[in-house]
Amino acid sequence: MLRVEVAWMQALADSGAAKADHVDAVVHAVHGWQPTLDPTEVEDAGNPVLPLVRALRARVDDPEAARLLHVGLTSQDVLDSGLMLLVQDAMARLREDLGRTAQALARLADEHRGSLMAGRTLTQYAVPTTFGLKAAQWLTGVLDAADHLDAVRRSLPVQCGGAAGTLSRAADLVPDPARAAAALANRLGLAWPGLPWHTRRAPVTRVGDAIVEVLDTLGVVAADILTLGRPEIGEVREAPAPGRGGSSTLPHKQNPVLATLVHAAALQAPQLGAQLHLCASQAVDERPPGAWHAEWPALRRLLRLSVVATAQAAELVAGLEVDTEAMASRTHAAVDQLLAERGGEGTGDPATYLGATHAFVDAALIRFRGGPRDA
Amino acid sequence: MLRVEVAWMQALADSGAAKADHVDAVVHAVHGWQPTLDPTEVEDAGNPVLPLVRALRARVDDPEAARLLHVGLTSQDVLDSGLMLLVQDAMARLREDLGRTAQALARLADEHRGSLMAGRTLTQYAVPTTFGLKAAQWLTGVLDAADHLDAVRRSLPVQCGGAAGTLSRAADLVPDPARAAAALANRLGLAWPGLPWHTRRAPVTRVGDAIVEVLDTLGVVAADILTLGRPEIGEVREAPAPGRGGSSTLPHKQNPVLATLVHAAALQAPQLGAQLHLCASQAVDERPPGAWHAEWPALRRLLRLSVVATAQAAELVAGLEVDTEAMASRTHAAVDQLLAERGGEGTGDPATYLGATHAFVDAALIRFRGGPRDA
Amino acid sequence: MLRVEVAWMQALADSGAAKADHVDAVVHAVHGWQPTLDPTEVEDAGNPVLPLVRALRARVDDPEAARLLHVGLTSQDVLDSGLMLLVQDAMARLREDLGRTAQALARLADEHRGSLMAGRTLTQYAVPTTFGLKAAQWLTGVLDAADHLDAVRRSLPVQCGGAAGTLSRAADLVPDPARAAAALANRLGLAWPGLPWHTRRAPVTRVGDAIVEVLDTLGVVAADILTLGRPEIGEVREAPAPGRGGSSTLPHKQNPVLATLVHAAALQAPQLGAQLHLCASQAVDERPPGAWHAEWPALRRLLRLSVVATAQAAELVAGLEVDTEAMASRTHAAVDQLLAERGGEGTGDPATYLGATHAFVDAALIRFRGGPRDA
Amino acid sequence: MLRVEVAWMQALADSGAAKADHVDAVVHAVHGWQPTLDPTEVEDAGNPVLPLVRALRARVDDPEAARLLHVGLTSQDVLDSGLMLLVQDAMARLREDLGRTAQALARLADEHRGSLMAGRTLTQYAVPTTFGLKAAQWLTGVLDAADHLDAVRRSLPVQCGGAAGTLSRAADLVPDPARAAAALANRLGLAWPGLPWHTRRAPVTRVGDAIVEVLDTLGVVAADILTLGRPEIGEVREAPAPGRGGSSTLPHKQNPVLATLVHAAALQAPQLGAQLHLCASQAVDERPPGAWHAEWPALRRLLRLSVVATAQAAELVAGLEVDTEAMASRTHAAVDQLLAERGGEGTGDPATYLGATHAFVDAALIRFRGGPRDA
Repeated sequence: MLRVEVAWMQALADSGAAKADHVDAVVHAVHGWQPTLDPTEVEDAGNPVLPLVRALRARVDDPEAARLLHVGLTSQDVLDSGLMLLVQDAMARLREDLGRTAQALARLADEHRGSLMAGRTLTQYAVPTTFGLKAAQWLTGVLDAADHLDAVRRSLPVQCGGAAGTLSRAADLVPDPARAAAALANRLGLAWPGLPWHTRRAPVTRVGDAIVEVLDTLGVVAADILTLGRPEIGEVREAPAPGRGGSSTLPHKQNPVLATLVHAAALQAPQLGAQLHLCASQAVDERPPGAWHAEWPALRRLLRLSVVATAQAAELVAGLEVDTEAMASRTHAAVDQLLAERGGEGTGDPATYLGATHAFVDAALIRFRGGPRDA
Repeated sequence: MLRVEVAWMQALADSGAAKADHVDAVVHAVHGWQPTLDPTEVEDAGNPVLPLVRALRARVDDPEAARLLHVGLTSQDVLDSGLMLLVQDAMARLREDLGRTAQALARLADEHRGSLMAGRTLTQYAVPTTFGLKAAQWLTGVLDAADHLDAVRRSLPVQCGGAAGTLSRAADLVPDPARAAAALANRLGLAWPGLPWHTRRAPVTRVGDAIVEVLDTLGVVAADILTLGRPEIGEVREAPAPGRGGSSTLPHKQNPVLATLVHAAALQAPQLGAQLHLCASQAVDERPPGAWHAEWPALRRLLRLSVVATAQAAELVAGLEVDTEAMASRTHAAVDQLLAERGGEGTGDPATYLGATHAFVDAALIRFRGGPRDA
Repeated sequence: MLRVEVAWMQALADSGAAKADHVDAVVHAVHGWQPTLDPTEVEDAGNPVLPLVRALRARVDDPEAARLLHVGLTSQDVLDSGLMLLVQDAMARLREDLGRTAQALARLADEHRGSLMAGRTLTQYAVPTTFGLKAAQWLTGVLDAADHLDAVRRSLPVQCGGAAGTLSRAADLVPDPARAAAALANRLGLAWPGLPWHTRRAPVTRVGDAIVEVLDTLGVVAADILTLGRPEIGEVREAPAPGRGGSSTLPHKQNPVLATLVHAAALQAPQLGAQLHLCASQAVDERPPGAWHAEWPALRRLLRLSVVATAQAAELVAGLEVDTEAMASRTHAAVDQLLAERGGEGTGDPATYLGATHAFVDAALIRFRGGPRDA
Repeated sequence: MLRVEVAWMQALADSGAAKADHVDAVVHAVHGWQPTLDPTEVEDAGNPVLPLVRALRARVDDPEAARLLHVGLTSQDVLDSGLMLLVQDAMARLREDLGRTAQALARLADEHRGSLMAGRTLTQYAVPTTFGLKAAQWLTGVLDAADHLDAVRRSLPVQCGGAAGTLSRAADLVPDPARAAAALANRLGLAWPGLPWHTRRAPVTRVGDAIVEVLDTLGVVAADILTLGRPEIGEVREAPAPGRGGSSTLPHKQNPVLATLVHAAALQAPQLGAQLHLCASQAVDERPPGAWHAEWPALRRLLRLSVVATAQAAELVAGLEVDTEAMASRTHAAVDQLLAERGGEGTGDPATYLGATHAFVDAALIRFRGGPRDA
């Protein structure tokens, strides 16, 4: 929020409504400041912006700069833009960890393109597949989620509308208030969508949806690892790490902690995304009483949850231990069932009944390596 | 689902695995058929595909065609692809009604660009605005939602993976099963994403998210109309229609029925979208036991809800009665509060404190008319 | 809804405002009638009550009875009371199927109190347990859910408030309108809560919460059966039934269809319950525009879903096949891990490390048999 | 969680498995301790219990006491019981604030039993009512929610099952482990339900449902106040407080901050309750990998949200300003519509068309005062 106030002073200066000295005074006041706000004042204002602006004004030495600070904006401009900056930061971290995850999955897909395993549907044996294809499917999910995230990231908008979305006060200060809004966006590395979006919340719900998709995708990876890592199946195992996965009472326990926490995150994400949509659908008037306020905790929780879970998923996948022997011996033991679809023969070599498995692995890897999607 | 079975037979014929006669036999069997399935058989199979295929086979005269029918596919291929065809149809209707809605809103934005009204935030008077800007904001929301819908529509994928996503059975029939999958897509007007997506459900959640966004957007329009149409405010009114909005006991009642129903739809959509995400995050193995099945009612309900609500919204907006006099007289009565932000003067002409209002209306209309977005 | 209209006429007759002949005329008109309403009229009214009353009036021969019909009520009285009658019916079916389920689970708990199996936490082996205790835990969940259901069932309320919750019109007909409301309740086998609850929706959310708890409980049973029924674990198996669990392509497949469908229902219930709460929190004025309307589909879906899933669960549990040999041999094979908590010894007889297992089974069975809870 | 560890040592002492000195050593080690746990250790363990026990052991001087600490319990016992203690504390605060709210509402209901106002349904005028009845309805909602809360509060259970719900380790220490569990409950002021509930989560969902009901109820009060406090309606007003409700840009603004925040809380609660149910339905094995972990943030958030919102609601209602003149003059101005139901006459005295209004107010007040419910 401080970045937004500074950038707005810069935008005013860009438009000639403030001087470089004013900007300097605000930059100086903000520098290194860790504001602590009185919770009662925040509650009284209904949001933290008013107390923050008041506290910041008191720190700005130049009285004219202090007076100009925040003028033309409304609290929602500062809060929404501040949230978008948070989203920007969080998405950069998500993107990096998804990149690491994709790297590890591509390696697994390639390495295990020939690792036979039982395909399972509705918990029962179906036909043979390979662990390479499973990894390729996980990879494709991660690439899809990352692309979705990138599309949303590129359009994160600045909020700038003033008291009721008309920039009326700003228009008393600068000749072209929409241009000042665009300057604000530019200073913050956000997009200016042409109109304020105080009551059009798709920018928020699209962030939510993209992040929920990330967690859906990682949730599937975690759920598969939890299943395949059951001791009776034992086809994959979360890498042991010193001090990890222990139990408060069972000395031998090696719990799949990372998969558990990623799965837990995936179970929470849909409700948080729904919360954002619900708020979006209730955005009455020029600012709604409550539907806006109920967005913040859901969005913050979603950001935090996804940043942590994506890091955990990257580590989980990078260290995943694959027991190809267990996979192979199970495939051979269950060959009658796995080849039953083929009819007649029954027994045979499961490796001869893989259909397009290799082609699908190739398709995923070609996409990962940036080649044409359907080469 | 019948369209999918027919198209698959065509795809087999395209690959040389079936003859034109086989296709004809299936087309003939399907023609005009309204299948009635035994609910117990559907429950026993866990989904309607197996009983449908069985019934269809019995109708196909050519025994070889009957034998080939569905071979290479799995029930999820037929059901998922069938759902995508339903989505395609529903989205076409949504798109058309959103187009009508946008048309009506553009007219309102243009017509009322000078219609002064009170801007309201947290239910209280803020600064002046115009009804034209309100309509322009609604319009922008509708255009955003329509663009989002279009993006999703263009990529609705066919499902084609066989028993466990390897196209193993198909590979025994045709030389290049991925090519047959692409042919299936082509026949159905869907996209072939390069790999099956049995357990990567982003195609489903993206449909859900886009439709929830449509309902979020229309929900805001409805909520605003419900508020502004309260008798104490009386600035807009849902067009009366013979027999509409009556009460079972109050003879004078003119209930805002369309706005009520659209608002009710918007209250339901977020949970349905969350349901789809939840299912997506639980898609274990090569087909999950339950998470796939729990998608269908949510998706069907969301399609139906949105098709009805979007039609209602189009009618609501097209007939909306705007009382500019009520708006103006309230603006003048509350001028002290509406101009308080401007400081000093206090009283004055609210029309002089509209800031970028006209520019924002123009921006929305230029976009609507297909011009550059930030002209 | 017809039952409500008839009962109201009876309540009016009880109060002297209608004659026995009027009641007879309405009873006669309703008898055997399957009303078909015009969807457009329903949409125009915002709910089906007005068109239903209109159609019913036209069927009543006695003009005075036709005139009196529905007088004093509002559409919400009829719809809410009608929904409570539906709930009553659905709950009776749920209760019966939960009773069958409890019976089967008590049998399993008793029969398998000595059937050793591996306790599993976070997917890994923990300490030994018995299948009897697992069944006893399932049983306790079912008994808790059934008790909760019973508590809610006993207090299902009639709705009776007239146009805006004051019974103003009824007060023009009868000397004591609250007494007439109580008479209506009495005729319908519902409770009269002392005031109408047009905008206090706890009666609806409590129904929802109790039913969601039923599905949570059955969902756990289904999830456990799906896990334990994986071929690699093979400790339980859904009873095969002719024609059930087949695949559209895999001849050998024996899918756990009932467990899958129950699990799918459990995945849907929380969102439906949340929908009801959301509506409850938005019940403004004397009747809200939309929040009331958005309750109906969620409640109806929840009733239907739970009635079907509870019947499926009863059948699932009644037929469950338990492989005690698989359980025992796994327990012995994993004895080192299962006894590691005990320290030192390591190997030993898992049957000697069951702690309170038998006591817990007894506690559950004593409760089931109606004895003191903590005997 | 420290209280649980201490109480367990006491329970062991009660059973003769520990000495009074051991209890003293643990009490001493806990006294005044504010543990700080390393987040990495918490993540590695999947929950905070193992690092907490480790840190506590290091603080216990008596080595035998340190060794006995936590023995027989599992991390879920400590965490679940600790959560129930948190719930106990939060519910005590909720109960107190609901009591204050009910007090204020009873006063309003009594004081305004004659304050005529317009009844509104679907946003439009219906029939006359009184503000006293509105307050009586709010009151009844609060009393219902408080009763529900009390019922759940009385049965908050201790968790005590050991590694996999069998109390196997405890049984090596004490003669009757179920008795030790009951002693633990007794020490903590919780109930012992006869069996552990590691995978039967109704205790958690019932807490959630009861708290969501509190917020539903307060949400309706807030939504009504937001509506009636719109400047065009002006029938109630949130009490002004110095420094409250200001705007960052509008000097005159008096935002209804408390109602806004309570409404925002009500918008969030249903999703949090759904999260708990979802987790409950996924509680596989003897402890699920993730579904248990995903409960904590939802429950904690729900507790915090409700404690804050209930305090805000108490203050909101206690200070509510009621403009009976505005209510009366509107009622008289709209008398034609408000009396239209009565037919013929049309105009008349709205005070003569109040039906059971006074009786309903009496019913609510009698209940509040503890008299018979339907006197």
